Amino acid sequence: MKSFIYDLPTKIYFGENATDNLNSELKNYGKRVLLCYGGGSIKKTGLYDKVIEQIKKAGSEHFELCGIEPNPRIDSVREGAKICKEQNIDVILAVGGGSTLDCAKWIAAAAKVEHDAWDFFSEWAPVNDALPVLTVLTLSATGSEMNCGGVISNPQTKDKIGRLARPLLPKASFLDPTLTYTVSAYQTACGSADILSHILEVYFSPNNDLYMLDRCLEAMMKTVIKFTPIALNKPDDYEARANLMWTSSWAINEFSKTGKTHEWSCHPMEHELSALYDITHGLGLAILTPRFLKYCLNEQNVDKYVQFGVNVFDIDKALPKMEIANLAIDKLSSFLFEDLKLDSTFTQVKIKQEDFPLMAQKACEGGTIKGFVELTASDIEKIFEMCI
Amino acid sequence: MKSFIYDLPTKIYFGENATDNLNSELKNYGKRVLLCYGGGSIKKTGLYDKVIEQIKKAGSEHFELCGIEPNPRIDSVREGAKICKEQNIDVILAVGGGSTLDCAKWIAAAAKVEHDAWDFFSEWAPVNDALPVLTVLTLSATGSEMNCGGVISNPQTKDKIGRLARPLLPKASFLDPTLTYTVSAYQTACGSADILSHILEVYFSPNNDLYMLDRCLEAMMKTVIKFTPIALNKPDDYEARANLMWTSSWAINEFSKTGKTHEWSCHPMEHELSALYDITHGLGLAILTPRFLKYCLNEQNVDKYVQFGVNVFDIDKALPKMEIANLAIDKLSSFLFEDLKLDSTFTQVKIKQEDFPLMAQKACEGGTIKGFVELTASDIEKIFEMCI
Repeated sequence: MKSFIYDLPTKIYFGENATDNLNSELKNYGKRVLLCYGGGSIKKTGLYDKVIEQIKKAGSEHFELCGIEPNPRIDSVREGAKICKEQNIDVILAVGGGSTLDCAKWIAAAAKVEHDAWDFFSEWAPVNDALPVLTVLTLSATGSEMNCGGVISNPQTKDKIGRLARPLLPKASFLDPTLTYTVSAYQTACGSADILSHILEVYFSPNNDLYMLDRCLEAMMKTVIKFTPIALNKPDDYEARANLMWTSSWAINEFSKTGKTHEWSCHPMEHELSALYDITHGLGLAILTPRFLKYCLNEQNVDKYVQFGVNVFDIDKALPKMEIANLAIDKLSSFLFEDLKLDSTFTQVKIKQEDFPLMAQKACEGGTIKGFVELTASDIEKIFEMCI
Repeated sequence: MKSFIYDLPTKIYFGENATDNLNSELKNYGKRVLLCYGGGSIKKTGLYDKVIEQIKKAGSEHFELCGIEPNPRIDSVREGAKICKEQNIDVILAVGGGSTLDCAKWIAAAAKVEHDAWDFFSEWAPVNDALPVLTVLTLSATGSEMNCGGVISNPQTKDKIGRLARPLLPKASFLDPTLTYTVSAYQTACGSADILSHILEVYFSPNNDLYMLDRCLEAMMKTVIKFTPIALNKPDDYEARANLMWTSSWAINEFSKTGKTHEWSCHPMEHELSALYDITHGLGLAILTPRFLKYCLNEQNVDKYVQFGVNVFDIDKALPKMEIANLAIDKLSSFLFEDLKLDSTFTQVKIKQEDFPLMAQKACEGGTIKGFVELTASDIEKIFEMCI
């Protein structure tokens, strides 16, 4: 088990009407609030009014950045940072899914520097400071509510880059499972595919000395597999929505990586898909992940697949190892493509073969992806081909 | 799932030589340090010298409270608080197991008030403030390193009382699994029994809508069951010690109770045993827990036992439910009393039947224990009788 520092002070308010506590947290961080949200669904659901009421109750004044897009863009970050500087914003309040949260986090950082916001990604400019960020989550997926990461797209350069930076960690997040009742079946499915991918990215690693963590990761995977079909079938099932929401936060926070040593694999590949095609992140991951697992499977690493198959999918452990491994991948596929009804091929989502070399190259710009199995651009192209 | 607030900002430094980071954390909290430790084993192992070196490196001055006893006493708290006041202490550094940590935490609170330290327990005096506490853990057991609780004994009144208070939460804890290599087989076993009990106390609850958490709790139980025999057999097995240490912290922190609604059962009973007999906490819990589970089992709650048996002990789920439940309890007993070689009866540890009524009465001073199954003093006496 690799040595690590665990440091996760984000405060979580969880449960129905969790946002009733928003005013007391807002008060801690100043009077001038930048409210960030997406396409406006929060106005339809009444959440917008609730949030405004909380801002008023806190005695705060607010400014707005709305229309933050899925796969949020650097222009939105620039726009938000401009408002922060002009209006002397004290605290950023993000209301929405992972895209809104990610965008708000990078606005918080960009508000503190003079250089262009994209320098954080193109130049890896240091992130020494950020405005405090509070989040109200409306979609269980990215885990952005409880970690210090954020992914930003740049349509000009066709880049989509994720980066972790401690100052971006939300001070507090408000998780009300009932706010996800109105999430569509498609977005619920994509969200769950995203959660599952976060877990698989750390679970499938060469670290075999993390017994407790690996069993907890299996616990989280079982939760996603059990409750997503329930939420699809009955969107207002509190138990299902609550278990999915709490799992989304733990699948990709500091806990889930404690002691792990290796890079992620499917996320860098998927970022290139959505950079070029703007497809939903969770959908891209769903298509890639079973193929990635199939491509990496070999006699040396089969035990990890066996663990996965036996502990997550309850496959008979008496079967031959390779058979268990392949069955496990099949079961994952049938969960993603049958239970969740997600598209299963690049062809269906109109990703063209001619772009494979470029996307593969960009996915491993550092040379190779040093994850569960080291992948070169040529390996990645082969995985893309398996997705056709 | 009950609504909850999750707020756990304790920073963890985990791994071999984690204490090398102590000086940088000490610097954050001031120049005058009260170093608290137990019977002096840290001098034999060289840990004392390492800690002193870190204090010097931080440029701090230190004072000492040593000899903190297992089942730490209110007199030690009083003595520590006196030093804090007289010497104007800025930060408390606890080096040891749960007893030392618990004592240090209550010293931190007592240093901030004028009244007697026992008032925190006899009068439930408010805990509004405390000195910052840092901990270096040498025994995987109580989880005190990552929560805001502490248990203090009062030999005069024969009370042993635990209390949670937010200001007691350690600012940072240093978890070096190699520091537990020298823990005796008996203390290792008692520590693991304690960890297991913390998990069982929340796992056996009437809350059946906490799927993700319950699966994680099973993950933690499996970890204790797998690695304790390994650590007993090979005390310097890093993987075993590391998994046990990290599990001890998660078994009883804010995460493990999120969404749970009910009180604990075995701990209040055990506190009365160790208040009267000063036996090792983990041993008392080991003797009580299987009997408690046997006593509470009925047709209404058998499903929880079945989950436990199937998911933790891999019992064939095709068997009749009651058979699985009883087999699970048997397997727990054989883990505690055969694998861990702990005494299995009150007779062996010389707890006398004549004290049962008094201990039972004190265990439910609030009327009843409102845990997994509501227990009256008469129920508790019956459980004690099963332990003879």
